[in-house]
Amino acid sequence: MKKNQISILGSGLIGSLLSIYLKRRGLDVSIYEKRADNRKGPYREEGRSINMALSDRGWRALEKAGLTEKVKPLTIPMYGRMVHDEHGKTNFLPYGKDNQAIYSISRGKFNQLLVDEAETAGVKVNFESKIEDVDLKNFQIELTSLQSGEKETIASEVIIGSDGAYSSLRNAMLKQMRFDYRQKYISHGYKELSIPATAAGEFAMDPNALHIWPRGNFMLIALPNPDKSFTCTLFLPFEGDRVCFENINDERDVVGVFKTYFDDAYELMPNLTQEFFANPTSSLINIECFPWMLKSALLIGDACHAMVPFYGQGMNCGFEDCFILDEIIEKYGTNAWELVFAKFQKVRKPNTDAICQLAMENFEEMKSDVADPKFILRKKIEAKLHQLYPKEWIPLYTMVTFSRMPYAEAYYQGKLQQKIMDRVMADPLITQNWDKLDYEDIINQMDKARAV
Amino acid sequence: MKKNQISILGSGLIGSLLSIYLKRRGLDVSIYEKRADNRKGPYREEGRSINMALSDRGWRALEKAGLTEKVKPLTIPMYGRMVHDEHGKTNFLPYGKDNQAIYSISRGKFNQLLVDEAETAGVKVNFESKIEDVDLKNFQIELTSLQSGEKETIASEVIIGSDGAYSSLRNAMLKQMRFDYRQKYISHGYKELSIPATAAGEFAMDPNALHIWPRGNFMLIALPNPDKSFTCTLFLPFEGDRVCFENINDERDVVGVFKTYFDDAYELMPNLTQEFFANPTSSLINIECFPWMLKSALLIGDACHAMVPFYGQGMNCGFEDCFILDEIIEKYGTNAWELVFAKFQKVRKPNTDAICQLAMENFEEMKSDVADPKFILRKKIEAKLHQLYPKEWIPLYTMVTFSRMPYAEAYYQGKLQQKIMDRVMADPLITQNWDKLDYEDIINQMDKARAV
Repeated sequence: MKKNQISILGSGLIGSLLSIYLKRRGLDVSIYEKRADNRKGPYREEGRSINMALSDRGWRALEKAGLTEKVKPLTIPMYGRMVHDEHGKTNFLPYGKDNQAIYSISRGKFNQLLVDEAETAGVKVNFESKIEDVDLKNFQIELTSLQSGEKETIASEVIIGSDGAYSSLRNAMLKQMRFDYRQKYISHGYKELSIPATAAGEFAMDPNALHIWPRGNFMLIALPNPDKSFTCTLFLPFEGDRVCFENINDERDVVGVFKTYFDDAYELMPNLTQEFFANPTSSLINIECFPWMLKSALLIGDACHAMVPFYGQGMNCGFEDCFILDEIIEKYGTNAWELVFAKFQKVRKPNTDAICQLAMENFEEMKSDVADPKFILRKKIEAKLHQLYPKEWIPLYTMVTFSRMPYAEAYYQGKLQQKIMDRVMADPLITQNWDKLDYEDIINQMDKARAV
Repeated sequence: MKKNQISILGSGLIGSLLSIYLKRRGLDVSIYEKRADNRKGPYREEGRSINMALSDRGWRALEKAGLTEKVKPLTIPMYGRMVHDEHGKTNFLPYGKDNQAIYSISRGKFNQLLVDEAETAGVKVNFESKIEDVDLKNFQIELTSLQSGEKETIASEVIIGSDGAYSSLRNAMLKQMRFDYRQKYISHGYKELSIPATAAGEFAMDPNALHIWPRGNFMLIALPNPDKSFTCTLFLPFEGDRVCFENINDERDVVGVFKTYFDDAYELMPNLTQEFFANPTSSLINIECFPWMLKSALLIGDACHAMVPFYGQGMNCGFEDCFILDEIIEKYGTNAWELVFAKFQKVRKPNTDAICQLAMENFEEMKSDVADPKFILRKKIEAKLHQLYPKEWIPLYTMVTFSRMPYAEAYYQGKLQQKIMDRVMADPLITQNWDKLDYEDIINQMDKARAV
């Protein structure tokens, strides 16, 4: 039987970054991954990816691993949302101040880079290793090599499950006494589509924005890629509404929906119907559980807090997990894993609960609110408040995306702001009067609310 | 490969009763059970059972299977709660009207009877058959015979999981897309203890009551057995409080807690310390999930709605599941399982959600409220209301325990009553004035509340 100091399950974004941190602390680290090494041969994304948007928390974690400069070339900055109405008219809503952006990046290439870096650092990455079971009594991983078909048992001092929403380690923990767990699917599914580069080899739309076609209970989004294409994601209810996946069964249905609701995008999507039926319809899950650890086994990232993608924080939150775990290891050393993991879950759980909740709430904003003039005005007022009082009023999106404030704190401040802004927006003449508002009074209200 | 028409997982109370119903409809029914046949050799309950309390819903289901007369001799009626205070003084709180009782029954003997009846009806019960996996694509059960060690694959037209809180069928469904699931442990655990018959061979306390020692955040209960012993259950927080399982580590600790808080019971428990350390500390789980079915596979009983034991409805609710499923089969026949199961989960889910919630809420009542004079007065007023207006005011406990009203309806009516009674009890002079209350006015308030 093989013996490892640290076994990481899953070579995804979180597992690879974490392995680099741990290796740099002088530990013996091995990763086990079911999938084949996709750096060899043509890369297949399986048509079910939503492009990632790197923001401050993610960059901070990459910085700590010395990877900023290597990752940058893979990204494209998006400075705001480009909202497309049903007539093809667009309206740009900035995410923050002029220089603040989130960075579009494709999961596949990013993951390849991180695995390369992990191997360079000395991590042993074992592909095509399917975890059959995690034995939490004896701290052994049972796996099958998908190449040879052979079974292997690996003893480990530490087991870390960064194996995503369908985690094997979590499945083993699920059978332990007093493990709380919840998985909840939302009513909507999604499908990956694309907008290729133009015949002239250029971006078909402004590349420095996240494009949204909000249509009430459904939406289309598009994020730019360095090859000048856009990765699009269509979010629809599975069933029940007039426009839903269940009601789209042939090419005519697809074209009908796109011509009616996304006509300007449709003109840019020559492969639409082919992609629609070739790519799977995927579901969206929210996962919460506790505890995240058992002795020296730990869950991290989506394995313990999978969230819906509507705040663009899933990967950033997972990277922040790694960053914070590494800080705790720095403090308590590499000989007290139970203590380290206990500290980690205690400090981290309220924050991941908050961002899971915010991600759920933000779906409403993306698919509906961004098309509402009142919502746009509200954002404008908040931006003005932030400009006048940069420390006293930081819009929620900015706290989450462009700061490192704990998510739970951002959530709390956001709720206070929401109440005050509800009052401000209740003025029936707000549309005319917004630039004559008593901004100082709003800040005073916020101070009072915080003091309670 | 063997082929079954209907495979039931688990030969517990629910699985055995259901098998009898289905067999009587002329179906070919087999049960698979991991445990050995406990009818052979000395019966072991593993020291982790809480006595069951049969009430109206359970009796109705047994009646339909023609089993009432066979089950009765195993039961002892309990007409109310006997509340023991810290000085050993007791106070009897009736459950309902004079003749209304719930019936104490030990799980083991009851289960043996039901398995006997299932076999007599022609059901094939396979013991020591451990389910390794349920293949929901091919509708096959993979099991290992614990006697021979051999593996077997069984194809089935219909698979029903009555395999309890840790259901194998549910585990297979958990991996399916869009299966919502939640398991939540409460902060308290429990331990089985006992009060034997006296030296004279008699009950050591009144056998026709459910005995409770409510102590705020913890409690002891005792239910009678036909052999004149009582099965006791101690409910304590696992940790955190002064009195909790974590703080009881040796005989002195056990005796200390019992002499301080349960002195009158302690005098009747000669085997206390031995049992305390021999019996496991078990945890209490609440499980909710949806859907309950996939094609012609169905979850039933604890497998889809395990509840905490504080309303005494876990078994009764599972039996009512069987009763209602059988009614739906009667209506739609035995050739339309998907339709039958879809109807079943739709009608049943709101009701099991309601009783799960009530069971959680009733813990507070048992461990604390029953010792509160205001609570006792409240019950008295409600009993009087019920006596004066038997149809207009049925106390919540009566609706749940002595009626067949859907649980969700009982829950709703109960919440209306609660609001009205909160108002009644807010009168600072209620203790003196309660028998001069305007009862008609209370009923009118209830009518108005219902009409909203």
